[in-house]
Amino acid sequence: MRVIDLIQIKRDKDEFSREEIDFFLQGYTRGEIPDYQASALLMAVFFSGLSDAELVDWTESMSAMTPQMDLGDLDGKKIGKHSTGGVGDKTSLIVGPLVAAAGITVPMIVGRGLAHAGGTLDKLESIPGFNARLSPKEFKAVLRNAGVAMTGQTEELVPADKKLASLRNASGTGESIPLIASSILSKKLAEGVEGMVVDVKTGSGALTEKMADSRRLAQSLVTIAKRMNKKVVSVITDMDQPLGNAVGNALEVMEAVEAMRGGGPTDLVELSLELAARMIAMAQPDRTVESAKDQAFKLLSDGSALKKFRQLIEMQGGDPSAVDHFEQLPNASAEFAISSPRAGYISRICADDIGQAAVLMGAGREKLDSEIDLAVGIVLEHKIGDRIQAGERLCSIYYNEETHLEEATQMVEDAFHISSVPPETRPLIYEVLQ
Amino acid sequence: MRVIDLIQIKRDKDEFSREEIDFFLQGYTRGEIPDYQASALLMAVFFSGLSDAELVDWTESMSAMTPQMDLGDLDGKKIGKHSTGGVGDKTSLIVGPLVAAAGITVPMIVGRGLAHAGGTLDKLESIPGFNARLSPKEFKAVLRNAGVAMTGQTEELVPADKKLASLRNASGTGESIPLIASSILSKKLAEGVEGMVVDVKTGSGALTEKMADSRRLAQSLVTIAKRMNKKVVSVITDMDQPLGNAVGNALEVMEAVEAMRGGGPTDLVELSLELAARMIAMAQPDRTVESAKDQAFKLLSDGSALKKFRQLIEMQGGDPSAVDHFEQLPNASAEFAISSPRAGYISRICADDIGQAAVLMGAGREKLDSEIDLAVGIVLEHKIGDRIQAGERLCSIYYNEETHLEEATQMVEDAFHISSVPPETRPLIYEVLQ
Repeated sequence: MRVIDLIQIKRDKDEFSREEIDFFLQGYTRGEIPDYQASALLMAVFFSGLSDAELVDWTESMSAMTPQMDLGDLDGKKIGKHSTGGVGDKTSLIVGPLVAAAGITVPMIVGRGLAHAGGTLDKLESIPGFNARLSPKEFKAVLRNAGVAMTGQTEELVPADKKLASLRNASGTGESIPLIASSILSKKLAEGVEGMVVDVKTGSGALTEKMADSRRLAQSLVTIAKRMNKKVVSVITDMDQPLGNAVGNALEVMEAVEAMRGGGPTDLVELSLELAARMIAMAQPDRTVESAKDQAFKLLSDGSALKKFRQLIEMQGGDPSAVDHFEQLPNASAEFAISSPRAGYISRICADDIGQAAVLMGAGREKLDSEIDLAVGIVLEHKIGDRIQAGERLCSIYYNEETHLEEATQMVEDAFHISSVPPETRPLIYEVLQ
Repeated sequence: MRVIDLIQIKRDKDEFSREEIDFFLQGYTRGEIPDYQASALLMAVFFSGLSDAELVDWTESMSAMTPQMDLGDLDGKKIGKHSTGGVGDKTSLIVGPLVAAAGITVPMIVGRGLAHAGGTLDKLESIPGFNARLSPKEFKAVLRNAGVAMTGQTEELVPADKKLASLRNASGTGESIPLIASSILSKKLAEGVEGMVVDVKTGSGALTEKMADSRRLAQSLVTIAKRMNKKVVSVITDMDQPLGNAVGNALEVMEAVEAMRGGGPTDLVELSLELAARMIAMAQPDRTVESAKDQAFKLLSDGSALKKFRQLIEMQGGDPSAVDHFEQLPNASAEFAISSPRAGYISRICADDIGQAAVLMGAGREKLDSEIDLAVGIVLEHKIGDRIQAGERLCSIYYNEETHLEEATQMVEDAFHISSVPPETRPLIYEVLQ
């Protein structure tokens, strides 16, 4: 078998066999196939796509190279949660403890933020003492006791995916729907779950900006998982404005805690309940989603989710009292208010730009090895549809370093669109595919 | 400017500006852009294509990096000839001297054979003493005196094209029509010609197997050249069976000489006259192609072309007496006849397979640095349409080493298709675009 023949197969829109996919993925992971042939092949995949059969083979081939977390000796159903990433998306912090409070085991391998999208791993590290670098053994111990555990990806867990992901980023093939789908599935199924709920974001701050692409991705995940005897529910949700109000690591932890105290922004709470309910219903197939949502609402309102979150923090070496004393979390030293230049309705808050502005202030990273400032970020005072007066505060930038403040302010101002008529209402949850 | 943005532009089917094309081609040639990004970009070009405007920019950008041969001080029109490559195609050996005999200057930069297609450079080197490695100064001297000169490509002449060509081969993007077109034009226009005739082959032994692709390439060459104020005539010709009878270096030189003596296979002579006539008519726009063809026929029949060929050989250090004494050329030590298994009509002679069989016997190379045997090859006794008896000789393999004889024999046998009814006649020359 020769790589050049494989490139030509996909270039000419033919199908790969499982052997050919193994040859490529194993050869590339082992460093036997040069980057310049792999990137040409990935670009051919971008244009020609992968059939469902190929996608199953591709995902299984990636999975076969990934050491699987064996959670077989843990009681109960293991259900995962994944998001394709968005600005202000702190649902994992809420949904993990919430679903664990319902008696379901939730193993979570979480990532760092990159570009405008935040990462749960960074947010967790704003909690003093929190250890998000668990060994598989430690991970399992937390999971057994708390029902939920959160750890960062380790190199040995997903070698194939890691190498491919960085090549995809560098070669402009990161947006290939089948490659995104197989990456999510091969990584997530290695968590040892029976199924998972995937929050597929759509809109200006999402990996897939267009609804059609989001739907293709959502459908792919469901279809491929089915063929692999796993269950995936894809929930397509809005990422045309940030989720909730807070964007920035410690700020998002605070907002998540508020939600677990029965407060918090409506959209964040609504989405968290939806995702939690879908996970509960997946673990208990005789339940309706409605009854699962009722239970989730109760567990969020009565403090059970927050209690679970405290337990998680404690078991992973963190100080759970930070949950009650936000001053123990990193706090920015200065605040800058951005006001509306005129009266009207907020018709758009470009999530991408808000995320980029937060990155500029230090909340996120452009490259995987950049240093970040866990305290800084942006907190919105208003969301799309709100009626505002001229001079009324739209949001605040929390910062420590003034260097990029002007640039970030400009970006945030540009992100807000004010119109004289109320905008059409956008749904938060577009579609559920299963 | 970032390469990743350029990749995305082409991936999303947008157009490059001249600056973006310069950035890519110059950056890649200088080694500043990594192969894995270049190959992804080339694959995106394969799928998205290049507009005529982009193709002009691309070609001019490549040309700008290529030292141009300055032939301004040579009298008369300078007209080039190029072939996209085929099996048994020795027309350059005939057309060069023939057109020079008509008083036109023909500078020829010739290449080595690769895979199943032969190269004029290898053929020339079968002539004892022939030096096909001329310095630009030597090249010009031969050209001034003989009106025709033939030399191999030198590294400094086409650095951008050379680097891109090897990446295209390795990344499955070698078949991209715009990339082929720009490669041909940037290389050939560096010869310092005012125009050229391109023999665009089509069929099983051609770079572009399908007629549609051949036509696209032929049309591209004409269009781009026009926009660059150069003249290209594309002649689309058959490469579904070998051209002429001889395949292999010294064997092809012998056949070319026979043609210049007034003999030789009909198809070879017909195509040589067509190409020569197009070149003469290009240099003398007031002439009709018909009258140019009459002149070419005369120059071929009366020995003028052969005389010019002798002069060329002598001026490039070779022994012109080899032209009269074929035993001075490399001759194979053994001959193996392949006969028809049954009576019927030859309906197909797969050019690709005949070429590959010749390569197997040592006549060509799989890699650019393989050693080749200039003496060996295949000589056809019959062509498509011929009626043959069972046991009648179809062709002979001339060889020195028996190692691959069986395999080559099998290949050749498979290349010949015998049918009970006469096949439809295929034209030798399909179309002329100008």
